[in-house]
Amino acid sequence: MPDLAYINHDQQIVELTEARLPVLDRGFLFADSVYEVIRVYKGKAFRYEDHMERLKHSLKEIRLDFAVFHELEVIIKELIKQSGYTDAKIYIQITRGIAPRNHAFPEKTEPTLLVTIEKAKSLPESVVERGVKIISSEDIRWSRCDVKTTALLPNVLKKQLALEQGAYEVVFIGPDNKVRECSHCNIFMYRDGLVTPPESQHILSGITRKVILEIAERLKIKSLQVDFGLEDLKSASEVFVTGSLSEIVPVVEIDDSVVGNGRPGPITKLLIEEYRKITREQY
Amino acid sequence: MPDLAYINHDQQIVELTEARLPVLDRGFLFADSVYEVIRVYKGKAFRYEDHMERLKHSLKEIRLDFAVFHELEVIIKELIKQSGYTDAKIYIQITRGIAPRNHAFPEKTEPTLLVTIEKAKSLPESVVERGVKIISSEDIRWSRCDVKTTALLPNVLKKQLALEQGAYEVVFIGPDNKVRECSHCNIFMYRDGLVTPPESQHILSGITRKVILEIAERLKIKSLQVDFGLEDLKSASEVFVTGSLSEIVPVVEIDDSVVGNGRPGPITKLLIEEYRKITREQY
Repeated sequence: MPDLAYINHDQQIVELTEARLPVLDRGFLFADSVYEVIRVYKGKAFRYEDHMERLKHSLKEIRLDFAVFHELEVIIKELIKQSGYTDAKIYIQITRGIAPRNHAFPEKTEPTLLVTIEKAKSLPESVVERGVKIISSEDIRWSRCDVKTTALLPNVLKKQLALEQGAYEVVFIGPDNKVRECSHCNIFMYRDGLVTPPESQHILSGITRKVILEIAERLKIKSLQVDFGLEDLKSASEVFVTGSLSEIVPVVEIDDSVVGNGRPGPITKLLIEEYRKITREQY
Repeated sequence: MPDLAYINHDQQIVELTEARLPVLDRGFLFADSVYEVIRVYKGKAFRYEDHMERLKHSLKEIRLDFAVFHELEVIIKELIKQSGYTDAKIYIQITRGIAPRNHAFPEKTEPTLLVTIEKAKSLPESVVERGVKIISSEDIRWSRCDVKTTALLPNVLKKQLALEQGAYEVVFIGPDNKVRECSHCNIFMYRDGLVTPPESQHILSGITRKVILEIAERLKIKSLQVDFGLEDLKSASEVFVTGSLSEIVPVVEIDDSVVGNGRPGPITKLLIEEYRKITREQY
């Protein structure tokens, strides 16, 4: 089956490449919308409730009144069924709807719900085995990155820059010189314990981040959510980045510094193994 | 005639409300796009070359390779002709095109060009005669506001907040406590001369702002482009905000402070008169 899409205004599932929305949709004109990306393993949406909780936070923060979560769940199940995919990614975008272009919220406009399903594409295993390079950059984004909005242009520009410099990701550094997160990943380091920046308005509360902290607790790996600087990150024994699609990606180089011995470390490998157990086996 | 739209992929002009784009357009998924709004007076796009220059700046800064400016000009003329509108607003949006969702730039993807024409709606004359209230807010936007992108969610949220507080606009204050601009306007004050913040990465280089500086020069009104604080703004004898659609709007209240004597001042009125001469008569 091809990739599929559902739009609430049309009330039907179509091929993803055929799905269209009016140009007057506020998602298009103003990035007045929020989204989620959920990984499907073995035909089931992984950590669905966590994603819904985060989506509700995003909706609340941008004051978008969307209430039909039951409908959303039904659609996701239908998309999984109709696609026949067992390993897939679900993309959900909710916009403030279709209205004449005007910054102010439109009155009595139904939000737009777009849900798509695509076949999952994992990173090549060789990338995970070797680890990747990341580069650092000042954080040019807005000051509410806890909200998962589609105003992603800064992330796009910085991710592209990273790729052109032979890097996988960019790590954003705040004006206080503290490490925040990457363009589409959270970041962890290992320094006598697992360390990741605390939740704030400058980082997205990652679901994979949460799962890893749970795994660490279960395995009795000490973990801390505290701020740290780029130099701390560079001198860590291990570093990795996390995301719902990319899962756990070991980082072996930051700017021109080699991390640890230049190869993915034992804690990172252990966490990858455990994450795969949860998603591929026990789940 | 109704409002109209043109999309390059379709190569045809349709009614604005009928115009649709694939959901995989990067304008929709990532706000990976830039735009311009041009006012049409007497059937002619006002300051067209200035808008094109700014559009080229935006495109360059987000590294979007769009070259068919001649085609764009032809389309705009055709939209003006087919709509029959003499007073209108032209909206141009250029996105990085249609491609599977992935932050990195897609390869060999044709940019999307959307051009729309709508009947112009002026602010009620009574609003201009009385003047408006504005509120101040910290600037939560990204750090490249010189680029006119569609990643406008912060602007939308703050504009809405202003309206709900009985205000017309919000003025953004930087972390250095300097006044920047509003959610969709530039800002001026009069204090023994016309003063507006200098161009920087934190303000959009407004076309109306430029025209006003030109008028001031012609009328031998001293003007300065320098940074100033919110308290300076509140204690100015006159304040006004400017935009291509709203033109010049007198500000008579900021937060809970009355500006000057609470009525639009003589310099503001003079500039409004001159701006109207240029756009309605001499042009």
